[in-house]
Amino acid sequence: MVPRFYAPELRPDSTVIVLPPEEAEHLTRVLRLAAGTEVRVFDGRGFECVARVAHAGRHDVRLDVLASAQSAPEPRVRVTLAQGLLKGDKIDDVIRDAAMIGVVAIQPLLTGRTDMPAAAFNRGGRLERWRRIAVASAKQCGRAVVPDVRPAETLSVCLERDRSDLRLMLLEPSAGGEVEPLEALSGRRPPASALVLVGPEGGWEPDEVTSARALGCLGLTLGRRTLRADAAPVIAVALLQHLWGDL
Amino acid sequence: MVPRFYAPELRPDSTVIVLPPEEAEHLTRVLRLAAGTEVRVFDGRGFECVARVAHAGRHDVRLDVLASAQSAPEPRVRVTLAQGLLKGDKIDDVIRDAAMIGVVAIQPLLTGRTDMPAAAFNRGGRLERWRRIAVASAKQCGRAVVPDVRPAETLSVCLERDRSDLRLMLLEPSAGGEVEPLEALSGRRPPASALVLVGPEGGWEPDEVTSARALGCLGLTLGRRTLRADAAPVIAVALLQHLWGDL
Repeated sequence: MVPRFYAPELRPDSTVIVLPPEEAEHLTRVLRLAAGTEVRVFDGRGFECVARVAHAGRHDVRLDVLASAQSAPEPRVRVTLAQGLLKGDKIDDVIRDAAMIGVVAIQPLLTGRTDMPAAAFNRGGRLERWRRIAVASAKQCGRAVVPDVRPAETLSVCLERDRSDLRLMLLEPSAGGEVEPLEALSGRRPPASALVLVGPEGGWEPDEVTSARALGCLGLTLGRRTLRADAAPVIAVALLQHLWGDL
Repeated sequence: MVPRFYAPELRPDSTVIVLPPEEAEHLTRVLRLAAGTEVRVFDGRGFECVARVAHAGRHDVRLDVLASAQSAPEPRVRVTLAQGLLKGDKIDDVIRDAAMIGVVAIQPLLTGRTDMPAAAFNRGGRLERWRRIAVASAKQCGRAVVPDVRPAETLSVCLERDRSDLRLMLLEPSAGGEVEPLEALSGRRPPASALVLVGPEGGWEPDEVTSARALGCLGLTLGRRTLRADAAPVIAVALLQHLWGDL
């Protein structure tokens, strides 16, 4: 694959691009590309172009735009993954995988079984690291869209703010109450947007499930075996995309 | 979840179980369970029982079998994942995820784009580590079956030995030649067994694709975005299981 770089300043009518510092470093220090090399550049919002390295200084990389380019097609259903914070830095892998599979936004969630306060999750450069992970994954996987990674918030704030057409909460088959298998969605027309809620390792608290249901969330189960909390989200989104003809 | 332990010596008519050393250590040193605790024990071949800790010595754990138990249901289609060796130890994660999702065997593959000899991959306790990972994943995910992890071998040896009813080779949409989307399989009756071949980071060599096709492998693509080599196999198997009503 041709090396790809992220330049949020890129516009469809740009003729010259100056790469941001991290991307310049990737081009010069990691990939050691020289002037004359052809690369791809994308804006993180879906636009991509072919460009040629005009100047490759360590802190100053300029590219000449050659032509607009086709990037990997985006899913039609705009999926937001709301993921309960996981132990250690396991949510890093979830963000990487979600960016790969094609979500438009990732909302880290503070849930009843997350044992750290919101402040701890939004300080220490964590949000910036998550955003870098999303950029790196989009670069690697051919997407021209970088999903929006949001600061951690509680489930109730998330549900209040969200405006998705369809809201799904991933549940263990043993969660009780109404839990639909994936097949239950197959008769429906794909929504324009969907929120997919995935719990932390310990799952959701019963009152989280109750209040999510009261706010219109559908309980969804992915089958009879137990999936690890860090593996469930990408599998869930891939299955939904398959169902919606979006894979 | 009730703690689960792997005891390959367990038989359906066992009344007492002595745990193998690693499992004894997990019970006493990691989980610190005492005599009287109720646990689950499975044999790795699909049988599981409820048992009570009778003696919890560090190197000597004995359990009394109380009753046979229901474990997570196994898929009807017996899937073998043949996975091209990946950079570093990334295949460890693939083995963990494949054991979680429900394959019956994992065959590490030496491919044209794997740059180490087979001997290097089968020495140094690698195979034993892979098998421990498969056991740990089965324990965590509620399966009573531990997939068979085989020594690394070449693609041609694998294809010669394999007797699966259906053989699928995961390909990029750009691979050329006939590449079926997942939907192409949906009209067919589920096979009794399937081999799923997933390449390394650099993909398959063209002659590997040609010879696999000549040996009856169907080229399968998972969609238009590029999936990382270590993420593709679990997504592929989950989608196939969904198609086959096996999730």
